[in-house]
Amino acid sequence: MSNKLRIAAVGLGRWAYIQADSYTKSDKIELVTCFTRNKEKREKFAAKYGCSAEESYEALLAREDVDAVIVTVPNDAHADIIVQAALAGKHVCVEKPISITMEDAKKIDEAITKTGVKFTVLHSARRLGGLRKMKELIDSGAVGQVSTIEVNFSNERGLEIKPGNWRGNPAQAPGGPLTQLGVHQVDNIQYLLGRVKKVFCFGKPMYTEVENATVTQTICELESGQQAYIAANWACPGVFSVNVFGTKANLFYNLDFTWWSNSDVTDKHTTLQIQEFASMGDDPDDRELRTSNVEVPTCNHLMDEMEEFAVAVLEGGDIEIGVKEAAHNVAIVLAAVKSMNEGRIVQVSEIEG
Amino acid sequence: MSNKLRIAAVGLGRWAYIQADSYTKSDKIELVTCFTRNKEKREKFAAKYGCSAEESYEALLAREDVDAVIVTVPNDAHADIIVQAALAGKHVCVEKPISITMEDAKKIDEAITKTGVKFTVLHSARRLGGLRKMKELIDSGAVGQVSTIEVNFSNERGLEIKPGNWRGNPAQAPGGPLTQLGVHQVDNIQYLLGRVKKVFCFGKPMYTEVENATVTQTICELESGQQAYIAANWACPGVFSVNVFGTKANLFYNLDFTWWSNSDVTDKHTTLQIQEFASMGDDPDDRELRTSNVEVPTCNHLMDEMEEFAVAVLEGGDIEIGVKEAAHNVAIVLAAVKSMNEGRIVQVSEIEG
Repeated sequence: MSNKLRIAAVGLGRWAYIQADSYTKSDKIELVTCFTRNKEKREKFAAKYGCSAEESYEALLAREDVDAVIVTVPNDAHADIIVQAALAGKHVCVEKPISITMEDAKKIDEAITKTGVKFTVLHSARRLGGLRKMKELIDSGAVGQVSTIEVNFSNERGLEIKPGNWRGNPAQAPGGPLTQLGVHQVDNIQYLLGRVKKVFCFGKPMYTEVENATVTQTICELESGQQAYIAANWACPGVFSVNVFGTKANLFYNLDFTWWSNSDVTDKHTTLQIQEFASMGDDPDDRELRTSNVEVPTCNHLMDEMEEFAVAVLEGGDIEIGVKEAAHNVAIVLAAVKSMNEGRIVQVSEIEG
Repeated sequence: MSNKLRIAAVGLGRWAYIQADSYTKSDKIELVTCFTRNKEKREKFAAKYGCSAEESYEALLAREDVDAVIVTVPNDAHADIIVQAALAGKHVCVEKPISITMEDAKKIDEAITKTGVKFTVLHSARRLGGLRKMKELIDSGAVGQVSTIEVNFSNERGLEIKPGNWRGNPAQAPGGPLTQLGVHQVDNIQYLLGRVKKVFCFGKPMYTEVENATVTQTICELESGQQAYIAANWACPGVFSVNVFGTKANLFYNLDFTWWSNSDVTDKHTTLQIQEFASMGDDPDDRELRTSNVEVPTCNHLMDEMEEFAVAVLEGGDIEIGVKEAAHNVAIVLAAVKSMNEGRIVQVSEIEG
């Protein structure tokens, strides 16, 4: 094996470019070739990044100089593409969510386990500098004992989706913004506080031409007993926030999502504040609060996830987000959608089986 | 009748002083006398404000130079005190919540209707300058069509309540912080967006010695179809925030609650931000967001509610928060508590009957 991870890009939509813009700058990764069914599209991608283009996925997998594939095909095509790659002995990283059904997640799990290839799901949000800092503050005890977390990931997409678009179809994008946006934040909840036990969701289509939900609000109880609120909304200007409430301090994180794709500078467009007691007398009326900015370390969320994967393949390093973590994120989203449709609490175990 | 509203204070705990510090500065109100069962306490209050003190509530109600009473006795004593005042022909203003049962709210309603006295409930939060401004921005269409609202009112009270304190008892403070803090925000939801139809709540005691819930998260569907999230938490440093999400803009309001009782300057310790599109091209990736501060008008939430009441009595002015609005707030809280206990959606109509 080369001293760089030699990868092939599969699925060449908008997000494949954003990923390639990032990982082609890494000295741990070399983009070798690519494939998508449309010839013009794969030649355009190959020309831009100076890599080969294959005429079939089979041809791509047959190349001995390809160590791994990065998969950015539509969510419901992930499983077949991944299983095929694993059986060909290729390591795999795939864009989140791992799948939109638990059956697909299980298929992927079986193929990965059977073949022993390295695998990760690209939930990049938890690699934002602010999220890393929040985790550090929580684990160090600086915020005391955490009771609740509130996350919000929203944008205006639902106002513009036309009937016929897959995003407007409850079967292809279950829960609308909950699948498309909320799953990022669900992973953040799992990262910061652990697994979710049960959920309840109110949601519906609002201010849209499509039948899918565009407005959702979900509350969760975690396995720890801590609680979470997840807002995923397609009917307002962009929001990305994570608030954590602890016995000693509260944390408030905000990201200007218009900078999300420029992952080398995303962290510079974020703020993290800590709110603590400035004075703590016995009389609650005499206490004072202080809110201050916390320095956010500069990470590179898209680069970091790819380099972790490269090191895992090349040197046997650890993988942070495997099938188990990624499938749990999908289960939480599907539990919320089921709750929204049935008007009752849904245990995540009902979905995970 | 005098050209000032002549009032008597009933129930002389901490909050009676905070109210009196405010309304005694009004040129529309004159504090005439006061009553509480403890002689020392009523003499202390009378001395501080230069008013009389009565030996019994009956004696207070018998005074012809008393037009109205301000009631700040414990929540579960509101109804009897109010009914007695109304039957004596006295106008009444009472601290929120109007009651902690629907039976008590009904008793109050009947007495007010029968006697025709003026009545208001002192939900001061909606009179904060920032809330007035938010209502104006929503009603003017500046935020477009609103889909959701998120409110949070929290403090550290639950960490310190001792067993035996009434706040730790689910019968006396149903839902803990939901009754004691959340009801303020429930009124704000009603003020900004209207009545609530159904609720779901997760909550429990956390990090506390008492059996009452200290951590609650509630989601609601409004009669309009809009949705709301209510956080009421007794296990973290103080938070008071109201966020509104609309198709054109989002609003973010924050209050440093340590300034709540100094109502002449409370508004100076608040921030209101509006987040809008700075550029709005056809390509969602090319849009930019702009967040800017909105000037918050300087109001005086405690003074304003009392002066409205005085003008209503003296000149027949309108009352913003009557029995109907205040009872709806209590019904929402009780529905949330029932939902928390029973693990199901509760229709507010189940509580209101």
